[in-house]
Amino acid sequence: MHRQSLVVNTQNREEFKDITAEIRNFIQATGVEKGFLTVFVPHTTAGVTVNEGADPAVSRDLLYILGKLVPHFDPKYEHYEGNSDAHAKASLLGSSLNLLVENGDLFLGTWQAVFFAEFDGPRQRRVYLALAGS
Amino acid sequence: MHRQSLVVNTQNREEFKDITAEIRNFIQATGVEKGFLTVFVPHTTAGVTVNEGADPAVSRDLLYILGKLVPHFDPKYEHYEGNSDAHAKASLLGSSLNLLVENGDLFLGTWQAVFFAEFDGPRQRRVYLALAGS
Amino acid sequence: MHRQSLVVNTQNREEFKDITAEIRNFIQATGVEKGFLTVFVPHTTAGVTVNEGADPAVSRDLLYILGKLVPHFDPKYEHYEGNSDAHAKASLLGSSLNLLVENGDLFLGTWQAVFFAEFDGPRQRRVYLALAGS
Repeated sequence: MHRQSLVVNTQNREEFKDITAEIRNFIQATGVEKGFLTVFVPHTTAGVTVNEGADPAVSRDLLYILGKLVPHFDPKYEHYEGNSDAHAKASLLGSSLNLLVENGDLFLGTWQAVFFAEFDGPRQRRVYLALAGS
Repeated sequence: MHRQSLVVNTQNREEFKDITAEIRNFIQATGVEKGFLTVFVPHTTAGVTVNEGADPAVSRDLLYILGKLVPHFDPKYEHYEGNSDAHAKASLLGSSLNLLVENGDLFLGTWQAVFFAEFDGPRQRRVYLALAGS
Repeated sequence: MHRQSLVVNTQNREEFKDITAEIRNFIQATGVEKGFLTVFVPHTTAGVTVNEGADPAVSRDLLYILGKLVPHFDPKYEHYEGNSDAHAKASLLGSSLNLLVENGDLFLGTWQAVFFAEFDGPRQRRVYLALAGS
């Protein structure tokens, strides 16, 4: 099993960062041809998702939609840190992905990219990659 | 590792298609008794989820609920293709599943089925299956 | 591959139950040092998610946010059992997780815990754990 951690520096409170290139580099460095890749975010106010990478308006619309669904402030939130919205968005997207590796590369559809989803930045974040295969 | 791709033809803009039988057929054809199954959707306006397969009203209610949460049109959407709602629903459900195989069959709870979730059809879609085990 | 099922008894209609300790116990009993853990919920009105375990207000806020997003009752729901909201919340969080095992223990970020998410309790529920590694 091959492991690596990526550092992701976010610049805004909310932001989708395309980490596809870093994931591809990791896979190619291992020499694994065929396998399973786990992408794991060890944070509770950030998530990870696969969506369209070609038009950056898609990510902006996703953040806009999530923001309408889960407002930043609500008088009923009890968590004292004021980032309950970020925790909820993290769980709605999820903190791990299970992806496929084929021909020594990440297997994605034509328009897909892997995004680190920051909901309470800017911060220095980490993403863990684990690859099983041969 | 065993691989297969399924073709899923959807008939409506939004639709849940039960793909459990196709997944079971694939597993049985491999002869694998115990393992892990990855279900991966290579599209950015469709997802995959596990939910109740017995009463078709459950899927209809899920589509209704997602439609109330994420309207098809909103003056603030920037993505030029007019399907930002479909991208958001895909990320809310997710594009991959990690399931278990036991006794040569997909391991699911009594009421569970695996659904391909179309949010921008009708289209011809694909689902990738990858099974590791023995 | 190591397997175990956990019994989770929920006390309320909606409730986040921290199952991190049970998962750690299972991993340690197997003696596996490095691997992949699948957590699978075989129910259609409950899910599983990773989020903050330190402040219990976070889980309460997540339930509050999900409850605002998906009301318990709506005249348009068709499913006769009256728990369409629970089915939708299960799909929004998801029914499986793909986690990492390192140094013989579950690998989580500092504030992360694994939660069984009950949306239609109280019930006796099950969670399946499957660990591949060495």
